[in-house]
Amino acid sequence: MNFSGVIPPVVAPLTSQGELDVASYERHVNRLIDAGVDGLFVLGSSGEVVFSTDDRRRQIIAETMRIVDGRVPVLVGVIDMTTPRVIDHARVAQELGADAIVATAPFYAIVGPKEIDRHFRLIKQAIDLPLFAYDIPVCVHVKLNSAMILDLARDGVIQGVKDSSGDDVSFRNLALSRTEQGLDLKLLTGHEVVVDGAYMSGADGCVPGLGNVNPTVYVEQWQAFKDGDWKRVRELQDYAARLMRITSVPVGEFGFGAGVGAFKTALMLLGIFETNTMPEPVVALEGANVEAVAGVLRQAGMLN
Amino acid sequence: MNFSGVIPPVVAPLTSQGELDVASYERHVNRLIDAGVDGLFVLGSSGEVVFSTDDRRRQIIAETMRIVDGRVPVLVGVIDMTTPRVIDHARVAQELGADAIVATAPFYAIVGPKEIDRHFRLIKQAIDLPLFAYDIPVCVHVKLNSAMILDLARDGVIQGVKDSSGDDVSFRNLALSRTEQGLDLKLLTGHEVVVDGAYMSGADGCVPGLGNVNPTVYVEQWQAFKDGDWKRVRELQDYAARLMRITSVPVGEFGFGAGVGAFKTALMLLGIFETNTMPEPVVALEGANVEAVAGVLRQAGMLN
Amino acid sequence: MNFSGVIPPVVAPLTSQGELDVASYERHVNRLIDAGVDGLFVLGSSGEVVFSTDDRRRQIIAETMRIVDGRVPVLVGVIDMTTPRVIDHARVAQELGADAIVATAPFYAIVGPKEIDRHFRLIKQAIDLPLFAYDIPVCVHVKLNSAMILDLARDGVIQGVKDSSGDDVSFRNLALSRTEQGLDLKLLTGHEVVVDGAYMSGADGCVPGLGNVNPTVYVEQWQAFKDGDWKRVRELQDYAARLMRITSVPVGEFGFGAGVGAFKTALMLLGIFETNTMPEPVVALEGANVEAVAGVLRQAGMLN
Amino acid sequence: MNFSGVIPPVVAPLTSQGELDVASYERHVNRLIDAGVDGLFVLGSSGEVVFSTDDRRRQIIAETMRIVDGRVPVLVGVIDMTTPRVIDHARVAQELGADAIVATAPFYAIVGPKEIDRHFRLIKQAIDLPLFAYDIPVCVHVKLNSAMILDLARDGVIQGVKDSSGDDVSFRNLALSRTEQGLDLKLLTGHEVVVDGAYMSGADGCVPGLGNVNPTVYVEQWQAFKDGDWKRVRELQDYAARLMRITSVPVGEFGFGAGVGAFKTALMLLGIFETNTMPEPVVALEGANVEAVAGVLRQAGMLN
Repeated sequence: MNFSGVIPPVVAPLTSQGELDVASYERHVNRLIDAGVDGLFVLGSSGEVVFSTDDRRRQIIAETMRIVDGRVPVLVGVIDMTTPRVIDHARVAQELGADAIVATAPFYAIVGPKEIDRHFRLIKQAIDLPLFAYDIPVCVHVKLNSAMILDLARDGVIQGVKDSSGDDVSFRNLALSRTEQGLDLKLLTGHEVVVDGAYMSGADGCVPGLGNVNPTVYVEQWQAFKDGDWKRVRELQDYAARLMRITSVPVGEFGFGAGVGAFKTALMLLGIFETNTMPEPVVALEGANVEAVAGVLRQAGMLN
Repeated sequence: MNFSGVIPPVVAPLTSQGELDVASYERHVNRLIDAGVDGLFVLGSSGEVVFSTDDRRRQIIAETMRIVDGRVPVLVGVIDMTTPRVIDHARVAQELGADAIVATAPFYAIVGPKEIDRHFRLIKQAIDLPLFAYDIPVCVHVKLNSAMILDLARDGVIQGVKDSSGDDVSFRNLALSRTEQGLDLKLLTGHEVVVDGAYMSGADGCVPGLGNVNPTVYVEQWQAFKDGDWKRVRELQDYAARLMRITSVPVGEFGFGAGVGAFKTALMLLGIFETNTMPEPVVALEGANVEAVAGVLRQAGMLN
Repeated sequence: MNFSGVIPPVVAPLTSQGELDVASYERHVNRLIDAGVDGLFVLGSSGEVVFSTDDRRRQIIAETMRIVDGRVPVLVGVIDMTTPRVIDHARVAQELGADAIVATAPFYAIVGPKEIDRHFRLIKQAIDLPLFAYDIPVCVHVKLNSAMILDLARDGVIQGVKDSSGDDVSFRNLALSRTEQGLDLKLLTGHEVVVDGAYMSGADGCVPGLGNVNPTVYVEQWQAFKDGDWKRVRELQDYAARLMRITSVPVGEFGFGAGVGAFKTALMLLGIFETNTMPEPVVALEGANVEAVAGVLRQAGMLN
Repeated sequence: MNFSGVIPPVVAPLTSQGELDVASYERHVNRLIDAGVDGLFVLGSSGEVVFSTDDRRRQIIAETMRIVDGRVPVLVGVIDMTTPRVIDHARVAQELGADAIVATAPFYAIVGPKEIDRHFRLIKQAIDLPLFAYDIPVCVHVKLNSAMILDLARDGVIQGVKDSSGDDVSFRNLALSRTEQGLDLKLLTGHEVVVDGAYMSGADGCVPGLGNVNPTVYVEQWQAFKDGDWKRVRELQDYAARLMRITSVPVGEFGFGAGVGAFKTALMLLGIFETNTMPEPVVALEGANVEAVAGVLRQAGMLN
């Protein structure tokens, strides 16, 4: 089982009543796989994991496994506040056939470095699946320490890192040490706007939220990287960075509502999703904001 | 149903195997009620809500309702990341007989002010119980806006605030506006070291974690406040502030491990709890740290 | 030389051309002293120290010493980024006759705890004047450690703390330890809205920016505190808290522009200052914002 | 006058008494120029600007202009808290012949976006030299807004940005917009460990603190970038990233003491500086920490 290349964090479509829109979801997942992605990350931050009840999480995993049917590996986010709750989610993921699980450090709970280390070790003891550490300080409010990551990798606790830390200096140093120490630790960047820089730094792949809207650009970029064609890597990145403006054009929106709100709106405009409905308490983009997203898609040649 | 006075956030004892220690819990709850507390707040941050699985949460609520048996009101923390998950917890609390629920703003999820407002309104629509807004930026990483709190109170959405914001200036202003506007909004402070200042500012009561260890000091202080005996209010506060050093003497511990770790250790030393076991991934205080807690209890005259 | 009681951080009036308005300043300083303040703190954060060139700082100190003429002690802020620069300012303050100096931890510079400790010791070695540590994390982005403060006091390095930390729990603990350890360390609170709580905690006085506008309320409160009349202490605090709304009513302003902007505007409306001119790059309150400040003054009975 | 390519932030050697070591400084500056750097940035954060008195700042500028004698452009940091103080420094820089000045947003002072914008405009009005905005939130505690930067560039206020923001996503977007809008705005990265990623994003050069120790690697990397040889750009970056470990091997040091402390120690070990003396209140690296720096230099082949 390989966990490198392009692994989008799959966005979940909802019906106007807020139920999972299974037909749209199937269309969406198949489109990603057909575009050549190397894996799927479901129930990530973009995949509205923290907005989903336990039942919804179970449903999303089950539908994903059914649709994917072994074509690509499926990583499942088991995001929750502390070890016992994460393990409960991980058991469900394992039972439903996940290929790997992705967990953050504890949050809300105020703990120190030794508890974070222990947290990952306890998860691994309970659930023998490949484990990715999810480094996302903007949500968890702590940055994973690189020395701890290397220790956990050396001890076989974690098999990869999904880095959404926004700290490119730390990422470079981690990648360098990982390679020098000969560790089998996959490093995936979540920053879709600077994947080229992450490849320069030694990333093994990317988890681009924007890849939901345009998977092809990241698949081609990954191929160009493997071919050593840095000029092409960069050009594709500039294209993707411009397309990412769908998330900055909405006015009066913020964070998840602007970002995932724009992804869902774009997918609706592209005919993949039926609606751009957002999970509570977030409200979907409307009116001029939808039009602004459409404008960016047009400039990118994705919409007429 | 009145929600003022001393309402400790009840700490939950665990067996050495990590199960809820029901016998110790019963002893503990009865001791608090016998000391004269005005209510109990279960599944608060000290009550290890985020360290508890859904099953454990359900167990704690059920045992609490059984033991309390209507002697004092019971507020239940329904802490989770977003609205749908909070509502799931709140339904359980309601079904098990909670007298009020306590919810934070969304966390992990990156949302803006309008989503926070909507979050509280949706919870109230779903669960018609008295609702307290829990303002705890050290965990949630956002401070509740005072203007929003006043709006929610005016609209009948929230009936109180549990303030652990550490922002005494904001608390004073909120209390002043609440009184001027004639709103029925209970303001409870969670800062056990400066309850006297909070009473000066207009607090309707306190939710002191330290009240688990010594409920009497806060009960007497509340009475002194009602009697207008500020000198006594202050003396009792100084005593409590010295006792609170049980949480700062442990070496090498941090946050929840130091704070609730010290409360549990003190309750073990006082013979209320069987163990000072902590929930994973936190490890209990040991050796010299236990002795340090004992030393503070002795200085306070609580231990021989 | 005593440094307790009410010691306002004196705001500096400017002419419409941005020069120091000496006539207004003299009127202002005399009004404060006539109201019974116990000292003056010039070149504090409200006293626009960081907005003043070295020449302006020198001018403000010199004019202050001339006007005060020994009637009350004068504390001088020597705010700058690192030790050598602070010492340069402190030499000027000493030469011009300051009674004490007030210094923050280094800022902009990224240093650790041992450098902060060393910083205060080096200042004291260079300038043998009473030294106050100024704890203002909102500007300096570090909170002074209480154990370090107590060490510095024990070693005779610092004689007081001007606390604008917004951390009432830490302040209570510091005051308690100071008293238990028999240290001669003056603790002054900068939070004008909760001075009553600070007195409960053991403060030796206050440095209220709002005292520029209404010194009398703080002077009376200090007297009530010394008389043990806590009810009166609290009533006066509520009055002051309402008056402090002059800083929250301006729309579209922020931080120094709203706070000191409102103080200057109020002093202009009260006829003490000729203008409400602000130092660059801040613009003075105008139009509806001036009227809003006037409205609060009227409600407080300070303006007809 | 061109401001692209490699422009190191020049570190200032001190004698053991803390005076500027002019002989070492001359050796250092000449070594940098001989290595082929495209410019020099003096009195930057690494150049201990905030640790220098006004006299020291003047001395550093004067000595630099004398030594450089027009061989490369000299940018001078005019770092201070607010507009009037920055302008005072900028007048000195202009008088002494600086080719450009570099200013941050106001700090310590709590101001909002409109004051930051006004700050840069007032500096430009007062001093008609090329002006670089220095984006360094780790020191200034505010991130410069990209829309404001683009506005200031369009209006001719700023001619460049020295980006030490650590926000590679924002940097990519800024570079993209700058190019699309045809603005003549130089973008220089201060992050010496990920210069390759910055070149991918469109940087016009770098300001590498590590370039003090090894200017050649950055000069060669810049040439490789201009030649389109991305493989070489990346290899040189990996080499530099390993060399940068001189700043992480010191134990018990932090921030400026670890970073610039390591640069000075390396330059001492390389025979360029006489001492590794640090400005107060920072203490120089000693003993095992010096040896640790030497070890990294040896691994990099810079020391026998």
